[in-house]
Amino acid sequence: MGMQRSPLLMSRLIERGATVSPQTEIVTATATGTRRQTYAETSERAHQLAGALRDAGIGIGDRIGTFMWNSSQHVEAYHASAGMGAVLHTLNTRLSPTDLAYIINHAADRLIIVDEDLVPIMETLQSRLPSVERFIIVQGTDDFDISATSLANAIAYEDFIAGFPTHTTWPELDEYAPLGLCYTSGTTGNPKGVEYEHRAQYLHTLTISLTDSMSLSATDTLCGIVPMFHAMGWGLPWAALMLGCKQVLPHRFMQPGRLLQLIAEEGVTLSAGVPTIWQGLKAELEAQPDKFDLSRLQRLTCGGSAPPLSMIQWYWETYGIEIIQGWGMTEMSPLGTLSRRHAKYGDDRLPMEDRFADMGKAGLLMPGLELDVFNENNERLPHDGEQIGEIYVRGPWICKEYFHDPQPDKFFEDWLITGDVGTIDENEYLIIADRSKDLVKSGGEWISSVDLENNIVSIEGVQQACVVAQPHPKWDERPVALVVLGPDVEISSEVIVTHCAEKFAKWQIPDEILFVSEIPQTSTGKMDKKTVRANLQASGYVLPDLRTAEDVA
Amino acid sequence: MGMQRSPLLMSRLIERGATVSPQTEIVTATATGTRRQTYAETSERAHQLAGALRDAGIGIGDRIGTFMWNSSQHVEAYHASAGMGAVLHTLNTRLSPTDLAYIINHAADRLIIVDEDLVPIMETLQSRLPSVERFIIVQGTDDFDISATSLANAIAYEDFIAGFPTHTTWPELDEYAPLGLCYTSGTTGNPKGVEYEHRAQYLHTLTISLTDSMSLSATDTLCGIVPMFHAMGWGLPWAALMLGCKQVLPHRFMQPGRLLQLIAEEGVTLSAGVPTIWQGLKAELEAQPDKFDLSRLQRLTCGGSAPPLSMIQWYWETYGIEIIQGWGMTEMSPLGTLSRRHAKYGDDRLPMEDRFADMGKAGLLMPGLELDVFNENNERLPHDGEQIGEIYVRGPWICKEYFHDPQPDKFFEDWLITGDVGTIDENEYLIIADRSKDLVKSGGEWISSVDLENNIVSIEGVQQACVVAQPHPKWDERPVALVVLGPDVEISSEVIVTHCAEKFAKWQIPDEILFVSEIPQTSTGKMDKKTVRANLQASGYVLPDLRTAEDVA
Repeated sequence: MGMQRSPLLMSRLIERGATVSPQTEIVTATATGTRRQTYAETSERAHQLAGALRDAGIGIGDRIGTFMWNSSQHVEAYHASAGMGAVLHTLNTRLSPTDLAYIINHAADRLIIVDEDLVPIMETLQSRLPSVERFIIVQGTDDFDISATSLANAIAYEDFIAGFPTHTTWPELDEYAPLGLCYTSGTTGNPKGVEYEHRAQYLHTLTISLTDSMSLSATDTLCGIVPMFHAMGWGLPWAALMLGCKQVLPHRFMQPGRLLQLIAEEGVTLSAGVPTIWQGLKAELEAQPDKFDLSRLQRLTCGGSAPPLSMIQWYWETYGIEIIQGWGMTEMSPLGTLSRRHAKYGDDRLPMEDRFADMGKAGLLMPGLELDVFNENNERLPHDGEQIGEIYVRGPWICKEYFHDPQPDKFFEDWLITGDVGTIDENEYLIIADRSKDLVKSGGEWISSVDLENNIVSIEGVQQACVVAQPHPKWDERPVALVVLGPDVEISSEVIVTHCAEKFAKWQIPDEILFVSEIPQTSTGKMDKKTVRANLQASGYVLPDLRTAEDVA
Repeated sequence: MGMQRSPLLMSRLIERGATVSPQTEIVTATATGTRRQTYAETSERAHQLAGALRDAGIGIGDRIGTFMWNSSQHVEAYHASAGMGAVLHTLNTRLSPTDLAYIINHAADRLIIVDEDLVPIMETLQSRLPSVERFIIVQGTDDFDISATSLANAIAYEDFIAGFPTHTTWPELDEYAPLGLCYTSGTTGNPKGVEYEHRAQYLHTLTISLTDSMSLSATDTLCGIVPMFHAMGWGLPWAALMLGCKQVLPHRFMQPGRLLQLIAEEGVTLSAGVPTIWQGLKAELEAQPDKFDLSRLQRLTCGGSAPPLSMIQWYWETYGIEIIQGWGMTEMSPLGTLSRRHAKYGDDRLPMEDRFADMGKAGLLMPGLELDVFNENNERLPHDGEQIGEIYVRGPWICKEYFHDPQPDKFFEDWLITGDVGTIDENEYLIIADRSKDLVKSGGEWISSVDLENNIVSIEGVQQACVVAQPHPKWDERPVALVVLGPDVEISSEVIVTHCAEKFAKWQIPDEILFVSEIPQTSTGKMDKKTVRANLQASGYVLPDLRTAEDVA
């Protein structure tokens, strides 16, 4: 009975940035340059937005959708909805119309805030969205004519919020109240919703701001490239609102040259995104090595899939920039593990090659979570860095069921079955071998597609590699590699196979290298192996008959 | 219903250090050098201690006392008691026998772990401690003969824990379950207990490890000089157990030269203590400027009272060491605000003199707390850096009542009335105007002026006594007593000092007794201490130079 029982509400954290850093800027990229507003203004506008939403009948627990890029208005929507107790349903701009209609209806979104350039998508969908009462259109610099939209009950964002009070008192909610909703389309069937809660995001926000996590500080300039519609933008918008650090938001302007310009001109110190972003920036930097001043940039948080070690090394050796590898998923709010170069041994106590080896792993578990690797009998495997099993995780920001769609087969007791397989080494670093459905099962042995891809991508001139299983009459499955080469690059299959043979056993090497111009991507920017496999099947692909029993066994 | 409801228990955090940093050391100073053990060993011994405590009948919620310096065994006691659900009552080694007996009885401690050099104090007390069933004696390097102690049912710590399992499963507790108890003697009357809880300490542990807080990391080497019996050692033992950073613990060897030797030889990067510690180290460094290699030392967290700005500047300009000023109190678990040099503007964006000015303030509020300055009508004062009022604070790690002694007058609605007065400036920095009108703070410890006055007035012939603080170059403040004798009464200073010594520790006794004819009064008939202090200052009063380090420490 000694301590106060204050609920863990996001409204207790997100007002702090505007209080301690009122003049710090939130910068949003536009078609012609940048747009700037302070934290003080952002907070005032968030309170106005909340007033407008309440006036439109939105109450505690109601879902509001955002169909938006990363922008100051999206930050305002985060701030307002969390403060007032609404549930922010962030809509992935890359979803198919079918999936979009499904998730908006499944969530019963009452209102959608939409960026002007995305209005046409909503216009084609709106007849299939009976729950949506109105659309709030965020106008930018594109001279969007709001009177011309067919969206029902449309109103400009600025008109919607105008005149409402700039300071209000947020309600006291239950700390388990929902605050966000994000659908994951990573597996078969309909997208499944993950409902985020105040308490879970509160703990997640503190945890990602630890020094041994991303070490986000008020003195950082943060450029969140990971979309705010992906797993709450990895929690970075919340942490920035708590700390009051400068934010730089790229909106839809995601070309490598534009991103590098923003990073250089705004003095970004920390950015976050998927590996393909950093591969794109690397290619641009190699093409124009002297164009961008990256002297303030210190660290790039990288998640979504594993970054190739060769890229981690390139950023460190070329610019002294640390790639912080993270592992998590929508169901984990999303952060589970992070690999910090210094997290175990400090900068000067471990040989650089060992540090790179650690940076190439998924990392150490965040405080407060439990994680282990299990065999098919749900028994824990030893932490020897060798035995591969299903990764289970539990803790206060781990999903326990899907939104109105429990999916009990995705859970074991109170553990989330992540769908990733991997191992934990003797230093407690998690190493992801693969998505369980992407592993190649050859002659009863598992082959990690991720390991092969990282190995092939480390060949100079290779831009991307995607390894998938193909059915084989004798070995069940055999790996095939799809490879994208850089412009004007010529590399033969033999070179790639020879390179793989330096690291892998014969039976682990792909049976064929297929050179392609691009790899299909999922809506979250990952390689879409399901589509790759389906395309191969549709094309009548047959594995070459090159493997003898000795080769593969 | 989306997220798991894992309780926020310290057992979820404190096992992490031994998991991710099993070989990292906890170093304890001894009479002859240092003693070392790893986190893995510390965890194993903590589980053994818990087994022994359970075997001795200690259950969930039972209080166990520690009468110990900072040492690896004290860390084990933190770890074991939090894990098993016992309540660790840390006993201040500097309390008077009367206060010690009072708090041990008030807490009903069932068992006390005591360092060998402190056994004589417990021996004199034990007849007044009916609740204590047994004493566990931690032997060090002093050849302590356990068979010679008069303590009932005494056992050596090593014998107590021997043979119990090194790995056990911690129970699932309610997250509001108590885990610690610390008495504060900061105000009048008997000491009052603050009961710490799992959830509160869990949140506090995360918060002090934020980059914008103390930025504690696994790569740090932490030397916690602040006693572990002061407000959970400011939470540092918990944070270190969570992160797995190297710890250096000074035990009772607190001489400046010895501390500097430890810091230099062990490569300490972060230390924490009261201003008098840093003043002592400064004097030693000035006397022997080339003796100690402080190249790894980066930051000194300083709390308990405000460090002089000249000292902050001296450390920065001489060694590049940052003094992080903090403000808090036992009732606040204890951290409320921290002033980081970089917290608002970064290293290179603000002139150094402005940064020093900020470093001289109590700092910015920690995320998750609310704090404001109120006038006597409980109205909030503007944040103008000028208007001074009572500081109130609330939030998830703020005390809401005292242990079995609610003291409702110390609270206003759900706010803790801190007893400190101050102002908040336009940049949201808290500035403490007066630690408290009446309390004397000597060497980081509170001395109650009212308790001394009541004691002196109890001498026959004394009419009135007024104890006020006077500034002291080494101990910050020392008490001086103004005494009014009855007509024709003759009492010497020696008599009064001897009388005080019956109840108070040496360091609590006034440095000088000034005989006066009257004490100025306020309009409400109370002694006007502000005027007393002002009169002393106007008269050019200087404290007698009578205190040696041994007398006051």
